[in-house]
Amino acid sequence: MSHVDVDRANSIALERLLAARPRLVGVARAGDVVPGLGKNQLRLLHAGPPITWERASGPLRGAVIGALLYEGLAANEAEAVARVERGEVELSPCHHHAAVGPMAGVISPSMAVYVVEDTAATGGTRRFFSNLNEGYGKVLRYGAFAPEVLDRLRFLNETVGPVLGEAIERAGGIDLQALVAEALHMGDEGHNRNRAGSLLFLKLLAPHIARAASPGGAAAVLDALGGNALAVLNPVMAACKAMADAAHGVEGSTLVTAMARNGTDFGIRVSGLGDRWFTAPAIVPEGLYFPGFSGADANPDIGDSTITETAGIGAFAMAAAPAIVSFVGGTPEDAKNATLEMYEITAGEHTRFTIPTLGFRGTPVGIDLRKVLELGITPRINTGIAHREAGVGQIGAGLVRPPLAVFHEALLAFAEHYGF
Amino acid sequence: MSHVDVDRANSIALERLLAARPRLVGVARAGDVVPGLGKNQLRLLHAGPPITWERASGPLRGAVIGALLYEGLAANEAEAVARVERGEVELSPCHHHAAVGPMAGVISPSMAVYVVEDTAATGGTRRFFSNLNEGYGKVLRYGAFAPEVLDRLRFLNETVGPVLGEAIERAGGIDLQALVAEALHMGDEGHNRNRAGSLLFLKLLAPHIARAASPGGAAAVLDALGGNALAVLNPVMAACKAMADAAHGVEGSTLVTAMARNGTDFGIRVSGLGDRWFTAPAIVPEGLYFPGFSGADANPDIGDSTITETAGIGAFAMAAAPAIVSFVGGTPEDAKNATLEMYEITAGEHTRFTIPTLGFRGTPVGIDLRKVLELGITPRINTGIAHREAGVGQIGAGLVRPPLAVFHEALLAFAEHYGF
Repeated sequence: MSHVDVDRANSIALERLLAARPRLVGVARAGDVVPGLGKNQLRLLHAGPPITWERASGPLRGAVIGALLYEGLAANEAEAVARVERGEVELSPCHHHAAVGPMAGVISPSMAVYVVEDTAATGGTRRFFSNLNEGYGKVLRYGAFAPEVLDRLRFLNETVGPVLGEAIERAGGIDLQALVAEALHMGDEGHNRNRAGSLLFLKLLAPHIARAASPGGAAAVLDALGGNALAVLNPVMAACKAMADAAHGVEGSTLVTAMARNGTDFGIRVSGLGDRWFTAPAIVPEGLYFPGFSGADANPDIGDSTITETAGIGAFAMAAAPAIVSFVGGTPEDAKNATLEMYEITAGEHTRFTIPTLGFRGTPVGIDLRKVLELGITPRINTGIAHREAGVGQIGAGLVRPPLAVFHEALLAFAEHYGF
Repeated sequence: MSHVDVDRANSIALERLLAARPRLVGVARAGDVVPGLGKNQLRLLHAGPPITWERASGPLRGAVIGALLYEGLAANEAEAVARVERGEVELSPCHHHAAVGPMAGVISPSMAVYVVEDTAATGGTRRFFSNLNEGYGKVLRYGAFAPEVLDRLRFLNETVGPVLGEAIERAGGIDLQALVAEALHMGDEGHNRNRAGSLLFLKLLAPHIARAASPGGAAAVLDALGGNALAVLNPVMAACKAMADAAHGVEGSTLVTAMARNGTDFGIRVSGLGDRWFTAPAIVPEGLYFPGFSGADANPDIGDSTITETAGIGAFAMAAAPAIVSFVGGTPEDAKNATLEMYEITAGEHTRFTIPTLGFRGTPVGIDLRKVLELGITPRINTGIAHREAGVGQIGAGLVRPPLAVFHEALLAFAEHYGF
């Protein structure tokens, strides 16, 4: 019989999550700052738990092809596929490199990444990374790789990125928790709806952008930032990764510290179970489709953006974002109930993220494996929906839950490891 | 007995209000564009119904003194007061000049004003005006007139105004109803809470501001705009004036088309009763005070910003803005109930302004004099609170209602005029 005090371990893990203070400090070239993404390996990062090319879904394959074209490592789609099939390209999860990426989440060395620092982390400052958000429509993260997709990516990484980086430095960095806290009072939930957060991001940077570029250059960057209501999603994801990682590695804790999907498998990690992933086949989301598309076109759930729910926002904060239902389906009452249900499976309430319509109650945070299985309630997730084929892109947005099996598997492993 | 069909008249008035399409088209010098504010008269505009200097409250007196100092028409406070007391300065309501101003609402010829056009107006395009919002603390609109207040005003009118004007023109104008509609889905109510609307305003103008000034100049304007969460209040007020005026002058209509306060009197105008004001003493708002102040320091209700409630936003849309209670007092439930109560006294629901938490129901709009008196329910108003003495400034924010007497007086006049 184990003498591990799980409740106490979960309290410690939750305290650490809440004590994290992620701050956006800059933008850099991924190959220069992301650990393990150097120049000498042909390695690409991707969303979710580990996956092989053979088992990879259409949108992830499309993004890998796009990244190889973007890096000049292949001249066309066939050449890119051939290189991967010959085993020349290593696919490695973002989560193994202190990074997170929405949807396919493919990050290659010459892409720009946001740099987020958590100076409050146990054991000293830690750094976390996410790529730049490309906006809507045909974009790499949804598996599109047409020439205009890569042109847009080049503009973002080479023109927007450096200006943003200088503006962030001139601004003295950005407190991302304060930004999210304010955005939750302005109808965002921080995952699918980031309209307010992206505007707050624009507000904080705009004067510095004006000084960091020529008038025309500044106008182009302000336009790119202001025209993308998801602009702040990626740095917010890196901040959520900082919070979730702070809770990771607490002996005896059943708190979930990562939920991520690669488009084939849904995987979770648990605080007290080290770096092991528990996986099961990802589910196809339910939601609203763009004209001309339906559920039959949808890829299973994909992306690292579930790090938002892991840190107590996204679907967990949906009561703060009643207007989101016009995008993901359902009614404002459903949105409220989504949050209320998540209190059932979490260890506590966020001390900085609050929901006005619930009397400023803190968002539910710290998914407890035990509660998920005791109640049979899996976490709720808001998500975009990708076409199942490579090269198409986003076809809708909706709601999904992880397969219950990943929690079963994790609890069995927990019992085995701790001798319950 | 009258043959006037009041219900039909109110339907026509409401249709006209909803058909207005106010568009922000530029910024100009007040003396160049506001009718009746030329160079040859010593005339100052002010909020609310007509008032004499003798009956004017502290904050209005302070703003009048400040405007005379600002215009160089007096060298100091005593000289300003002497000129007004000698009858050399005419005080005229903003509402008599197609203009609106928050709080004291004093507009003098060399101040910058937003120019809003309603091309959908019956009888051809109409233009409406409002001054630039000064931000918080010691500001002219709350009756402060210290040198730093006037310096800030000069910076706004002479530096920010022209750049904003050029940016608005480069942007091709701004659809202010679309902006308000989006802001209501982001936790604003459009009167006391304009955080989201001000950020949307910044987003629409930022790239154009970058092109309209030097890097340093653009940075200063972006900073002034981004640092003021009430920046968009004034153009929104002018848009609301366009909507309310569209409903004015319908024979037989009991809809209220203006509510305004000068700090001494609360006045309303009614669609079917011409330009006559119905007035009664203004009430002191209830709310939250800044540290060091209390209700004993408060001036009675002041300002033209009640034009927002007249057009179906502000307190009427408070259910959209649960986070506002941290600023004005009460609970999110009170905020919801405020909106629900206003459906009782209005002629219809707004077709463009909707509230997500009420299932996207349109905001209550078109205050019907008859319903106010039948039910004894007066309109709710969100407001800032000014210190009762000249020169101090804002001391809080809260909630207030008009005196019931103004509606009594208006209904008596209506009965007399139409022979009921």
